[in-house]
Amino acid sequence: MAGESATGTPPASALPAPVCPDFHHAVELIGRRWTGAIVFALDGGPRRFHELAECVTGVSDRLLSQRLRELEIEGIVARSVTSEPALSVSYALTEKGKGLRPALTELQAWARGWKAERTSRSA
Amino acid sequence: MAGESATGTPPASALPAPVCPDFHHAVELIGRRWTGAIVFALDGGPRRFHELAECVTGVSDRLLSQRLRELEIEGIVARSVTSEPALSVSYALTEKGKGLRPALTELQAWARGWKAERTSRSA
Repeated sequence: MAGESATGTPPASALPAPVCPDFHHAVELIGRRWTGAIVFALDGGPRRFHELAECVTGVSDRLLSQRLRELEIEGIVARSVTSEPALSVSYALTEKGKGLRPALTELQAWARGWKAERTSRSA
Repeated sequence: MAGESATGTPPASALPAPVCPDFHHAVELIGRRWTGAIVFALDGGPRRFHELAECVTGVSDRLLSQRLRELEIEGIVARSVTSEPALSVSYALTEKGKGLRPALTELQAWARGWKAERTSRSA
């Protein structure tokens, strides 16, 4: 890149504004290892820890706990504990967490669409 | 979590299917450090390396190169080199890359909406 000339015609219009920091934070938050999958798994309703561990294939208990804590701090997931009839901990999306659904639905559609494209090309 | 009873009423309906692996790959791809911001910066049209480095505040040249290569391998970004009038390298979204726009637009709306919410609460 150091060899680029400053005199060539720019390939695009004026330099865009710096990437929106709120978007930047959001995309890296949901894209953190396992996080998107955890939010996705909670989309159907509250889940217990062991249920989440089953849905999110491959995650360790330690990382699942850590990601859930991060999502709690971000206000995306709420943790609730009931002691009757037995101690039970469950996790649910907050309103803020549910607000991620349109973005995640679009991303899933994209992932499926391009997988189909790949499959039909290789067929 | 080991203390949870297996006899309590489940907090949600039947266990959902494992998280779709295509979605899982996609969310962690675009959420990788700097990747979402790079795709976002390319949304306005092709950009040269140094233009991207300016839009994506804080990224090092080494990591920007690495992320662009990963995006090329995924078929999301295409790199083109012209030698006239001077050597120039630019990057653009492919059709697959442009297909990410709805998801990223939704995510940006979410990020902005919840930032506004936070601001109005603290006002």
